[in-house]
Amino acid sequence: MKLGLIGIGHVGSQILTDIQYENLFSEITVIDSNENLAYGEALDHVHMQGLESVNHIDIHRGDYADLHDADVIAISASAPMDPNMPDRVALTKDNASLVTDIMQRIAQVTQSALVIFITNPVDAMTYLAQDHVDYPKEKIMGTGTLLESARFRTLIAQHYQIDPKSVNAFVIGEHGKNAVPVWSKVTIFGMPIAEYEKLANVEPIDQQAITDQVDKVAFDVLKNKGWTSSTVSRATTSLIRHLLLNERSILPITAPLNGEYDLDHCAMSLPTLVDKNGIVERYAIELNEDETRRVKDAADYIQSAIQLAQENL
Amino acid sequence: MKLGLIGIGHVGSQILTDIQYENLFSEITVIDSNENLAYGEALDHVHMQGLESVNHIDIHRGDYADLHDADVIAISASAPMDPNMPDRVALTKDNASLVTDIMQRIAQVTQSALVIFITNPVDAMTYLAQDHVDYPKEKIMGTGTLLESARFRTLIAQHYQIDPKSVNAFVIGEHGKNAVPVWSKVTIFGMPIAEYEKLANVEPIDQQAITDQVDKVAFDVLKNKGWTSSTVSRATTSLIRHLLLNERSILPITAPLNGEYDLDHCAMSLPTLVDKNGIVERYAIELNEDETRRVKDAADYIQSAIQLAQENL
Amino acid sequence: MKLGLIGIGHVGSQILTDIQYENLFSEITVIDSNENLAYGEALDHVHMQGLESVNHIDIHRGDYADLHDADVIAISASAPMDPNMPDRVALTKDNASLVTDIMQRIAQVTQSALVIFITNPVDAMTYLAQDHVDYPKEKIMGTGTLLESARFRTLIAQHYQIDPKSVNAFVIGEHGKNAVPVWSKVTIFGMPIAEYEKLANVEPIDQQAITDQVDKVAFDVLKNKGWTSSTVSRATTSLIRHLLLNERSILPITAPLNGEYDLDHCAMSLPTLVDKNGIVERYAIELNEDETRRVKDAADYIQSAIQLAQENL
Amino acid sequence: MKLGLIGIGHVGSQILTDIQYENLFSEITVIDSNENLAYGEALDHVHMQGLESVNHIDIHRGDYADLHDADVIAISASAPMDPNMPDRVALTKDNASLVTDIMQRIAQVTQSALVIFITNPVDAMTYLAQDHVDYPKEKIMGTGTLLESARFRTLIAQHYQIDPKSVNAFVIGEHGKNAVPVWSKVTIFGMPIAEYEKLANVEPIDQQAITDQVDKVAFDVLKNKGWTSSTVSRATTSLIRHLLLNERSILPITAPLNGEYDLDHCAMSLPTLVDKNGIVERYAIELNEDETRRVKDAADYIQSAIQLAQENL
Repeated sequence: MKLGLIGIGHVGSQILTDIQYENLFSEITVIDSNENLAYGEALDHVHMQGLESVNHIDIHRGDYADLHDADVIAISASAPMDPNMPDRVALTKDNASLVTDIMQRIAQVTQSALVIFITNPVDAMTYLAQDHVDYPKEKIMGTGTLLESARFRTLIAQHYQIDPKSVNAFVIGEHGKNAVPVWSKVTIFGMPIAEYEKLANVEPIDQQAITDQVDKVAFDVLKNKGWTSSTVSRATTSLIRHLLLNERSILPITAPLNGEYDLDHCAMSLPTLVDKNGIVERYAIELNEDETRRVKDAADYIQSAIQLAQENL
Repeated sequence: MKLGLIGIGHVGSQILTDIQYENLFSEITVIDSNENLAYGEALDHVHMQGLESVNHIDIHRGDYADLHDADVIAISASAPMDPNMPDRVALTKDNASLVTDIMQRIAQVTQSALVIFITNPVDAMTYLAQDHVDYPKEKIMGTGTLLESARFRTLIAQHYQIDPKSVNAFVIGEHGKNAVPVWSKVTIFGMPIAEYEKLANVEPIDQQAITDQVDKVAFDVLKNKGWTSSTVSRATTSLIRHLLLNERSILPITAPLNGEYDLDHCAMSLPTLVDKNGIVERYAIELNEDETRRVKDAADYIQSAIQLAQENL
Repeated sequence: MKLGLIGIGHVGSQILTDIQYENLFSEITVIDSNENLAYGEALDHVHMQGLESVNHIDIHRGDYADLHDADVIAISASAPMDPNMPDRVALTKDNASLVTDIMQRIAQVTQSALVIFITNPVDAMTYLAQDHVDYPKEKIMGTGTLLESARFRTLIAQHYQIDPKSVNAFVIGEHGKNAVPVWSKVTIFGMPIAEYEKLANVEPIDQQAITDQVDKVAFDVLKNKGWTSSTVSRATTSLIRHLLLNERSILPITAPLNGEYDLDHCAMSLPTLVDKNGIVERYAIELNEDETRRVKDAADYIQSAIQLAQENL
Repeated sequence: MKLGLIGIGHVGSQILTDIQYENLFSEITVIDSNENLAYGEALDHVHMQGLESVNHIDIHRGDYADLHDADVIAISASAPMDPNMPDRVALTKDNASLVTDIMQRIAQVTQSALVIFITNPVDAMTYLAQDHVDYPKEKIMGTGTLLESARFRTLIAQHYQIDPKSVNAFVIGEHGKNAVPVWSKVTIFGMPIAEYEKLANVEPIDQQAITDQVDKVAFDVLKNKGWTSSTVSRATTSLIRHLLLNERSILPITAPLNGEYDLDHCAMSLPTLVDKNGIVERYAIELNEDETRRVKDAADYIQSAIQLAQENL
């Protein structure tokens, strides 16, 4: 099994480290416009293999031709994210041509790899990639609100002082400030929030405050650490494992809409069933009024980013 | 960190293997009334450490005095389970004195280890252990319907052909034929069953058929394989990890009731918050009429097992 | 990636458990002449997938036709080993036709899977499989003295009270009482034994006593536990990982000789370079006089087992 | 179990990520003079716990008082390494007071934690820490040539195109350009180099070229990637695992010399036996003439760094 990593900044580098714990690949090709960086990252990871607990696999700087037999390609290449940018859409102008160029190069050498976008604004970029390039549509997806979902569960769990794995919750919509935390479907080990709060005798959670935090905490990381990498990397490596092991998991990832909620010409995260061939189906789940409005707002916002992107191609 | 394993039959042996993947313990003491067996199992696992990917920890046959500084003690010692037995309660007569004897020996050397019962009938045995021996009550628990919960999620997932991790579901009540699958709280990635079935356009699940299978499939394993070990071992090692890492997870495990559902003098599985000190609190979740009736039936059945056990001490 | 397991007794069952920690396969087919057993083992492992930390892969009872797209096939099918048997060669009569039959069935459906024999006497069985059936020779191998090597390192490490991973040592020759511990190449973290013993100021190791133990300790496990499974399973899963990740590791495994030490018509363990295609090359390492004599003895013994096997086909 | 991380730059951040795969700690305290950075890194790693495959442990920014019950403290705090610096000793002036200050603060709150230095020049810094502060000497150590050893094995393995785990080799001396690759003790799966090259029929390795590379490749990483992090992090987390599991491993780590090779007032890497209490003993292994000379050179160089450091306190 072979992985292609396009972009080896903070996120790509961390994926290169994390994915090796998964044992899924015997070969990893690292591609970056900064060839020295790609070389340096590959080298640091090759040296690691001299340690007894690290597997010996083939990690090397490469080019697009090397991807002809890749099973998965993960793309985090991006113009740099500035903590002072208002949001991820500020990257649109720079990343639009970058992403379409990468996707075209991929499509020239393979039509069978699963392609995962992490590059922001990820919804617009995922839409663009499948819209501008001839490639099997079910094989293109973006990490999307996988990250907000992790943060949402963590925020809820922190309030209750419990394990986030005991919280059933997820986020759909835009990977950004128009993320839609689906409060109407949150349960704590199966219990609706009100029931859990009564049984556990805990202070009620402030849903609005948490909703306000779901995107903001990413910028807290960005501003304090300078970038985000740990969560996005583990989210991506988990997604890759679900795909390659053909687990048939349902995950909140982004892909183009096909009329869900009467929306089209847009990509956003929805609960999505994936298998080894990519996206199997997506679920336009029932939402309450507020959530429905937020989904529409997310679509509007993503569509304007897509339009901005298309104008910059 | 130190683990004591009491009973090294098929289940204990598999726990000894699985727990080493967790890196949680630097010492494991194996105790069995068949000292040769304890020696042979320890030896096979010590030889394993000559392999490059296996950590070198101290695994040895021991006695109860060795448990004075144990952090966790897992007990699977049992009279043999015969596939032709009507259910786990048939083990009561033999295991009652075994369990109380083990618990007394433990209490003589420590009051601080977390004590996990796997020995069946696990609800009655867990009750007996804390009722007959002076030991911190929050530190005694049994694996209970952790196993039925795994099987329940698997059965639902098989019907829908999805990853069991995308199914939010659990079982409470007796570890046995009076297990109570909590259908009223089942969701598929947050969706109620009806919503998911409609969106995924799948054949409706037959709840009664699944309910009938939850306990029966354990006997399918028992009759075909001769014993059950894989699932119970992984459930136990997961529980140990949750405890030692102080994850504050909510898990369906068994412990004595304290008036939940107006029930006492009984132990059964309920959603239970655990931390490094053991049981923190238990939730008498809202149930529908059928589930409530089943919980009462489970209590009756477990109480009769407890009574039978007490008569045999 | 797909694994076929032929034989699901104590060893096969443990491999089925251990291999899932490696994330290498999305599908595992279990084959056993006792179809109920294969069903029961698969079922217990499927239930395990209802636990949150276990991946969802396709584990099922199958038949030989299912192996057509297997990447690896591991064979532990065997007549039962009786602790009172003088050694593993006592299994020859029963296992010879079993192994050739299995190999023929495999060859009918694939020529590309890596085939790993664990069935004893493993040297003779591995020889037979490649001699009687038309199959790429480099793809057939046996676990051989991988096990004695683990035990040898453990025994040395126990004497010095150090981590076996700090001991560089291995065993070649027969998987059995004619195993050849290669004392002339043993080092402790690079130090020859005499140097280490002087620097560490430890009691000299009794090489003859250890040599006598290398095979005997397997029977200590067999007699006390009733079978061996933990070490052999982890040795096999490590071998599979080395192969599938294309690590190009050197390992002491068994395969037919091609004139090494002027020996032919025999299989025995030697240091062997393996990659994703199987055996790359084998090294007839320099031995001292005693080791050379023992290799000849091993060859004689294995050849007599092969002859016995061939007479029983 | 509790870990303290002092310094959360590229290395500390990667250790924070890698150590969570080991399951060894239920609490991690992150300390950095840049409190925002410590907060941001902790936050990114806390968000990660919202993913189903990540354990829920307590990760938080803290201060030295929090270390009172730490089991291990790993220190990578450092002035920034500039790729144009001639070597790690250029950091001495800045890091000397940093390290002694950190060690004093640690000693005020605990005398029982194992203290691991990664801060460069690591030999001088490890010496300084134990020389200037009253703390149990066996509990202070530095990663030292663990890194060069990994790189040495990798370089040899790359030449032969084999798994580095099949190469028995290590480096002692300075963590830097006076590192001493111990060629006289290198074996390939137990075979001396000449024997292996003859049997494998491969081009002879250029020992001088490899020796020249052992330190240089770290600077190749530094110059191309901007820092080194992957290898040093995994080396550190492996060391922590060996210590906490009480594996009694022999590892090439740095600590003050006590007359080995007639050297004192110096710290350098030697093969070192460690257990849960820290350093047990160190081995002044037999060296050839060239290696012996290099060890003396390393000592001279490290002593001059120590002197420079002491002048800057």
